[in-house]
Amino acid sequence: MKKNMVRVGIVGISGYSGGLAFELLLNHPQVRITYASAHNTTGEIAKIWPHLAKRTSLYCEKFQTQKAIELCDVIFLAVPHTSAMEIVPKLLRADKQVIDLSADYRLSKPAVYKKWYKLAHKDSSNLSKAVYGLPELYRAEIKKATLLANPGCYPTSAILGLAPITATLTDTIESITIDAKSGVSGAGKKMAESLMYCEANENFKAYRVLKHQHTPEIEEYLSKLSGKNMKATFVTHLLPVNRGILSTIYVRTKEKLTTGKITQIYGRFYKTEPFVRVLPAETQPELKNVVGTNFCDIGLAVSEEKDVLVITSAIDNLMKGAAGQAVQNMNIMCGFKETEGLL
Amino acid sequence: MKKNMVRVGIVGISGYSGGLAFELLLNHPQVRITYASAHNTTGEIAKIWPHLAKRTSLYCEKFQTQKAIELCDVIFLAVPHTSAMEIVPKLLRADKQVIDLSADYRLSKPAVYKKWYKLAHKDSSNLSKAVYGLPELYRAEIKKATLLANPGCYPTSAILGLAPITATLTDTIESITIDAKSGVSGAGKKMAESLMYCEANENFKAYRVLKHQHTPEIEEYLSKLSGKNMKATFVTHLLPVNRGILSTIYVRTKEKLTTGKITQIYGRFYKTEPFVRVLPAETQPELKNVVGTNFCDIGLAVSEEKDVLVITSAIDNLMKGAAGQAVQNMNIMCGFKETEGLL
Amino acid sequence: MKKNMVRVGIVGISGYSGGLAFELLLNHPQVRITYASAHNTTGEIAKIWPHLAKRTSLYCEKFQTQKAIELCDVIFLAVPHTSAMEIVPKLLRADKQVIDLSADYRLSKPAVYKKWYKLAHKDSSNLSKAVYGLPELYRAEIKKATLLANPGCYPTSAILGLAPITATLTDTIESITIDAKSGVSGAGKKMAESLMYCEANENFKAYRVLKHQHTPEIEEYLSKLSGKNMKATFVTHLLPVNRGILSTIYVRTKEKLTTGKITQIYGRFYKTEPFVRVLPAETQPELKNVVGTNFCDIGLAVSEEKDVLVITSAIDNLMKGAAGQAVQNMNIMCGFKETEGLL
Amino acid sequence: MKKNMVRVGIVGISGYSGGLAFELLLNHPQVRITYASAHNTTGEIAKIWPHLAKRTSLYCEKFQTQKAIELCDVIFLAVPHTSAMEIVPKLLRADKQVIDLSADYRLSKPAVYKKWYKLAHKDSSNLSKAVYGLPELYRAEIKKATLLANPGCYPTSAILGLAPITATLTDTIESITIDAKSGVSGAGKKMAESLMYCEANENFKAYRVLKHQHTPEIEEYLSKLSGKNMKATFVTHLLPVNRGILSTIYVRTKEKLTTGKITQIYGRFYKTEPFVRVLPAETQPELKNVVGTNFCDIGLAVSEEKDVLVITSAIDNLMKGAAGQAVQNMNIMCGFKETEGLL
Repeated sequence: MKKNMVRVGIVGISGYSGGLAFELLLNHPQVRITYASAHNTTGEIAKIWPHLAKRTSLYCEKFQTQKAIELCDVIFLAVPHTSAMEIVPKLLRADKQVIDLSADYRLSKPAVYKKWYKLAHKDSSNLSKAVYGLPELYRAEIKKATLLANPGCYPTSAILGLAPITATLTDTIESITIDAKSGVSGAGKKMAESLMYCEANENFKAYRVLKHQHTPEIEEYLSKLSGKNMKATFVTHLLPVNRGILSTIYVRTKEKLTTGKITQIYGRFYKTEPFVRVLPAETQPELKNVVGTNFCDIGLAVSEEKDVLVITSAIDNLMKGAAGQAVQNMNIMCGFKETEGLL
Repeated sequence: MKKNMVRVGIVGISGYSGGLAFELLLNHPQVRITYASAHNTTGEIAKIWPHLAKRTSLYCEKFQTQKAIELCDVIFLAVPHTSAMEIVPKLLRADKQVIDLSADYRLSKPAVYKKWYKLAHKDSSNLSKAVYGLPELYRAEIKKATLLANPGCYPTSAILGLAPITATLTDTIESITIDAKSGVSGAGKKMAESLMYCEANENFKAYRVLKHQHTPEIEEYLSKLSGKNMKATFVTHLLPVNRGILSTIYVRTKEKLTTGKITQIYGRFYKTEPFVRVLPAETQPELKNVVGTNFCDIGLAVSEEKDVLVITSAIDNLMKGAAGQAVQNMNIMCGFKETEGLL
Repeated sequence: MKKNMVRVGIVGISGYSGGLAFELLLNHPQVRITYASAHNTTGEIAKIWPHLAKRTSLYCEKFQTQKAIELCDVIFLAVPHTSAMEIVPKLLRADKQVIDLSADYRLSKPAVYKKWYKLAHKDSSNLSKAVYGLPELYRAEIKKATLLANPGCYPTSAILGLAPITATLTDTIESITIDAKSGVSGAGKKMAESLMYCEANENFKAYRVLKHQHTPEIEEYLSKLSGKNMKATFVTHLLPVNRGILSTIYVRTKEKLTTGKITQIYGRFYKTEPFVRVLPAETQPELKNVVGTNFCDIGLAVSEEKDVLVITSAIDNLMKGAAGQAVQNMNIMCGFKETEGLL
Repeated sequence: MKKNMVRVGIVGISGYSGGLAFELLLNHPQVRITYASAHNTTGEIAKIWPHLAKRTSLYCEKFQTQKAIELCDVIFLAVPHTSAMEIVPKLLRADKQVIDLSADYRLSKPAVYKKWYKLAHKDSSNLSKAVYGLPELYRAEIKKATLLANPGCYPTSAILGLAPITATLTDTIESITIDAKSGVSGAGKKMAESLMYCEANENFKAYRVLKHQHTPEIEEYLSKLSGKNMKATFVTHLLPVNRGILSTIYVRTKEKLTTGKITQIYGRFYKTEPFVRVLPAETQPELKNVVGTNFCDIGLAVSEEKDVLVITSAIDNLMKGAAGQAVQNMNIMCGFKETEGLL
């Protein structure tokens, strides 16, 4: 083990996000994976993920808090919401750095959590310690974080698409509509009839219309950014692809915007960002250009006739929308190069 | 040939819409296909469409106006826009009934046609004769039509989704946003890099954002229905499926609506319609339930917090969005049972 | 109800085959569906199969033998193997005509059933009454059948591909290899990790290599046809499509064949068959030409250098491979036109 | 530029293999890309391949032999066959190392090339210099190669699947049948109706049955390995996936083999290979485990009843079947770690 290498553990290795985090960290030059666990599965990781055979000989075990604490400096939690808040307090008490991919520490208010996730938060005292892990907005805070709330996939796509106009032209915004489409892996590796091949293939539908639990997360961070209460109409759809989210965002404005001005605002906002690409005018993001990468691609179009701005924002839901962003956050927290292991 | 059978010709048999119109008419008990032509291909139709082998022994020839006039009572034009307006005047002079699947006779104003299709209309004198073939709105007019303008695929989905509220609650509507997603066959059977398998598969993107030529068609018939000038923000996307359109429509309203009221309005409006299904509350349309059928499925959701109604409208772009609707129109024009050959 | 209409019941309406049989029979002019049941679901069929809303108002109930007997003349069993042999004896005692889509009555020898399906046959006394429902081979027997064993999907594709050469050039055949590929609906509407969208999409694999339970069915009917013991090497694969089977069949021969001779043999054998299409030389069957139809398309190629004939045989696994063939068999059993409801 | 870095050029950057080779080399720590060209396109590579924006600022130009010679030590040719043999002689005269991804230098005999590629070879004098770039068989020769003939995608999959038994049990082999299935990218980035999304999606077919130009390549290297004239029946199919080849290989043997023995032979043969994984008994390779990697996964099954061995061999056609293997070969030729840039 090289000097300065960080010892990392991953809890929840058998899901899509946990599995991909493992794969990314396997190639990370400053990380040594020292611990991996899953809820239902134990044994060789190459048996759980056969595409990793001959790449790792590590084992996966049933989660034990004490062992994780002993073996790791940084711990990724790729577990369902509600499970994370059982584990986090113990890890924080042991002075570990925690990167939580679940939804448990993203919302600052327990009441909002209860409303959308239908159960009471069990660790509300640590909510104030959590830093929301969107590096493009909170890089400084992430640097000092011990509890990192890794953003949801839809919120990452929506907030990155909206941040520049929200931050600079707040008072111009009249209404926000987010029409989001996600590949099937967004639902996780769980069995449900609607996720069976013959049901999802050659199909398309909206789901949880106006009721998706990512709504308050989007609204909270847009509000924080603008300094006032922001609302967004949010509808999600199931796309027949494995990976990728495209959000088409309609911003109705009180005054007419020009393509030139908007492009300039977005260009400046993301100029030095390694993982956001604002596309040239008349160019639209496509899932195939972001899937497998940690990039967020953003397209902009202004109506000639109506006071409407159309923003399209594309990410890989498992990369920038989950495991990739988690590694980006770890890089910032540990003082590594931000793009390490991600390009 | 049974008595009372109508002699039908199809111009443009080698495209997706023309081919499907041919297949539907092949099974229609009151129709005899007496003529079929295509632009680039001639010969046995079962060679052009191998799935029709042992089902037809008809031939396809190069289009000749005079022959079509002699052999047919009703003529389907499944040709590109601009081609239709070359043929239609001749067919009308010969007293034929014409069902035009192209865009040439859908817009009533030549100036609007010129703006969106980038060329001057060549048969503007016949525009006033054209009846817009959306049976749910114009059944009486269709009955008497000699020139039928078969609606575009996107407009069919959007207008059917919006008609009930537009007709009954016009003054409540503040803005309309239509986020539409179409399968690849919507682009026709043409070669373009973006339509290649490896480009469209596992991909998704918006295209012609705010510039799609179906925009004025949607706005014209919503305006006609409401009696005032209606605008709609319209964005189209390319879905990785062969067939199907789902439009997610956001109507911002001046006052709060209730699910109960909206469901009642839609239920009444389409109560006797054979091909529109208003789904129960909390149920969303899915492409798989309409693909291969002539149905339009409509879902409704009202926001609890915002003054927004979300309408989802699904059709098969080649059926209700093209060939199926054309046959439905023919049934009305010829006095047949409206569902004949379509259920 | 028109005179001469047959009263039909379908047991197992919620699976893919049962659901499709229901849909086909709904359109059949000489059939009235008088009974429908499923194992786990009851209620409006349009709730179970939303694509049938506004097309049927029938209900599905829990299966009761006595009710099925009272209400039906012909009963389709679209149930898992082992369930069929519980029901069949009762229906036969009541003089009903039974069309069994399961595997329970396809193999004539209980010992073979036990070897491949891993359990003892419970109704072996009725095995001799069962007629194997491949109309191209057993039309005369099917006409008189009361218990019809509807063939498996893979065997239909394989036997139709092999029948002409097996029947006419038996002694020339040295070995048979069947490399079969099936769409995901072949596995039925069951939940299994390998059938989830993200697992099957963009994937392909062989499964149950050399151990598939359809092997003895193929071997039995090839043996019956040739009058001698025939063996076939049989490997199945999971294709990322909803529907369709393509079998690529390699026949090594003791002497060299010519394309001309083989094409003639196949052409003659299937000349009057309504649902088999022998393709012209140099033409290959494609799933898209048979999916949604009851056709079996067959392609032929003879090696110039080796003593090998390559037969490719394509069907829709749910149509000619299940529900479509079941309706074809019913047509024959009831004296209807063989293609009724299927073209 | 670090010391010891190799200057690499890629000719044919706009195709799938050339584009992927570029992407792999971009991340290679011992390589500097100093030249890139394409036939029809020039300009920023990030415009040609938008997924590479913010990852490269390199330009692509029209190919000029002299410039390539001046700027590069190693040159990848990702051009169509026939183009390579125009360029190779000039590069060899200038003492460059050439890695040719086309078919031009794979077959040792000009007459065989002419028979299968339908034109005369123009550089037959250099054929004897070419080393066939399958590292698992020819690592020692590759180390010294100046002209590397990178294997075809189908032959890589077939030969790796067959090499152990061909090398060790030659006399036992009676016949070989290779049923191969490839994703659509195997056809390259060219426009053809059969490669359009709506034609290839939900479809499957065999093509060039018994006539595929990779047949003699497979036979030549199997023959070389066994020391005697080997023949293989070879049929290719078009799979509805972007990437991946699975070959199901049937070896009829003169005597019965056991799974134990075969597994041992394969395990030993590939024991130290970094990119070949022989799967445990009863386990089958799946495309999803190799796509995006340079691995070849191999499954083995022996018939209990017949003298047949079934080998399944899976690769990513663009990685181990093209660009990945090309980089692996470059690593060997340049003395780098063989897996550099590939894990």
